[in-house]
Amino acid sequence: MPATAEKPACYGRKTAYTPVWMMRQAGRYLPEYRAIRKKISFLELCKTPDFCVEVTMQPVDLLGVDAAILFSDILVLMEAMGAPLEFHEGRGPVLPQTVRSKADVERLRIPQAAEDLSFVMETIRILRRQLQVPLIGFAGAPFTCTTYLIEGGSSKVFWETKKMMYTAPEAFHLLQEKITAATIDYLRTQIETGAQAIQLFDSWAGILSPPDFQEYVLPYVQQIMAALKTPDLPRVPLIYFPNNGATLLELAALSDADVIGIDWRVDIADAINKIGDKAVQGNLDPFALMLPEDKLRQRVATILQSAKNIDAVHELSRK
Amino acid sequence: MPATAEKPACYGRKTAYTPVWMMRQAGRYLPEYRAIRKKISFLELCKTPDFCVEVTMQPVDLLGVDAAILFSDILVLMEAMGAPLEFHEGRGPVLPQTVRSKADVERLRIPQAAEDLSFVMETIRILRRQLQVPLIGFAGAPFTCTTYLIEGGSSKVFWETKKMMYTAPEAFHLLQEKITAATIDYLRTQIETGAQAIQLFDSWAGILSPPDFQEYVLPYVQQIMAALKTPDLPRVPLIYFPNNGATLLELAALSDADVIGIDWRVDIADAINKIGDKAVQGNLDPFALMLPEDKLRQRVATILQSAKNIDAVHELSRK
Repeated sequence: MPATAEKPACYGRKTAYTPVWMMRQAGRYLPEYRAIRKKISFLELCKTPDFCVEVTMQPVDLLGVDAAILFSDILVLMEAMGAPLEFHEGRGPVLPQTVRSKADVERLRIPQAAEDLSFVMETIRILRRQLQVPLIGFAGAPFTCTTYLIEGGSSKVFWETKKMMYTAPEAFHLLQEKITAATIDYLRTQIETGAQAIQLFDSWAGILSPPDFQEYVLPYVQQIMAALKTPDLPRVPLIYFPNNGATLLELAALSDADVIGIDWRVDIADAINKIGDKAVQGNLDPFALMLPEDKLRQRVATILQSAKNIDAVHELSRK
Repeated sequence: MPATAEKPACYGRKTAYTPVWMMRQAGRYLPEYRAIRKKISFLELCKTPDFCVEVTMQPVDLLGVDAAILFSDILVLMEAMGAPLEFHEGRGPVLPQTVRSKADVERLRIPQAAEDLSFVMETIRILRRQLQVPLIGFAGAPFTCTTYLIEGGSSKVFWETKKMMYTAPEAFHLLQEKITAATIDYLRTQIETGAQAIQLFDSWAGILSPPDFQEYVLPYVQQIMAALKTPDLPRVPLIYFPNNGATLLELAALSDADVIGIDWRVDIADAINKIGDKAVQGNLDPFALMLPEDKLRQRVATILQSAKNIDAVHELSRK
């Protein structure tokens, strides 16, 4: 995303140069980030606006990227819904009170982001005063949040998630509905507070077959995207990233998102063909950063060339 | 695979009925299997032919499937190469002596399967006397075995694997070459001993981009498949399964495998289009077994119909 207020790349417009997107896991690789983490736990960090601001700014200042992404975690919204949340060093998130029945789902509340997640909004307010580049806000997509609630953390095979999906579809859909409602309020409040683009991360969408994605995931993504495009809200670019979603791209393109994120597993030209007129965000393997510089440059060039060729084909076919 | 010695489905021939394939993790769901596991550790089980035979036969007798798959673990070959192997309850395999440098790779030996893995061959011999259905032998594909050696077990992001691939490509390729040589001897011996089909499991192929798959994985799969088709060896169907490989299917089809395995993430008609004239094996999500029976039947019917439609299109286009 180039550093302009109009964010033209996200809307598929021609830009001075083509931005390449790569996922970074917060700033965990930065010594500056690690120094802060020595002082404070991950969850405390997420809840302390001054530190969140500092950590958000670090890569902008050090690397000169085109946009900043809010430092936070997708699971703070789940905690606000009533699911206790813990982070243990080197183990990932733990949600000890799993959600596996209709009664469990009914116990969850729909928080008011302005109050219950005021630390996120405060971070956004300070960042907008300090940043020279656009600020991307985000949330986890309902399906991905759901897996954490059901599994009680990360998972390898998502046994409990699929079990609930297949054997208790009503409770499963009710859970998705509640998370969707909470996410809509959370993201609308981020936009109202100053987020200039929104990314919805569906980290675990790729465990599903296309028909399951269509039935259990897509409707909620569609609801969220539609709710972020109402006339009373500033219009900002909306990005949906179905991770490991090579076979889900045609479906993902049915949402109101402006941009579909793609990972490195898919050829960008194939992805553009499947996604159609939306913008695409991707698709360098973050591990490619370990390559010697000449090989890394080659990979970036290949992505750009591949995307350019397919764009040219599209333009020809429109004539 | 229908229960005939000619295994016609694997060669893409018309069969009385179309077999549906679904991965099972050994017989772990069976009370009969669990009873044996109470007596003996997983690794001891893998090395005790009488128990391996019993565990291989259990689902054949209980479920009436069309073929049996040898009970074993892909990592027994890595142990024979000199990598100590441990299994801890509920944690997956651990290989405490990781392989991360050229010196580490050089320390590995290429075992003689007939002697060093005689317990596998003994299992195959007994099974062939007792089974009424064809017996499938198997190995892990070199890339998947490599990840276990480098990571020292399972992984989520395969940091060390990609690090070695990108920063020490020579050592990485040497490791693949050694595993390939060991695998060729191991699978040839399985065929000579009586395995009637061979499946090569590439459980972690799906972490790679298509160009990386082409450079670091495919050449070794091709070598193995070619080495199993020499005139001195009984000709048996060869199956290659690049798990989570929706974007790798065109490349996988460049190997000499007769069958390409596909998981549930990909539409079977799309897969057939990409794979071309080879047979496909798939593609029901194993978790679908938790669905109510009518919905499960619906899914199987959808797979069969989808494959049938695309076959009809192919036949038309050949006329």
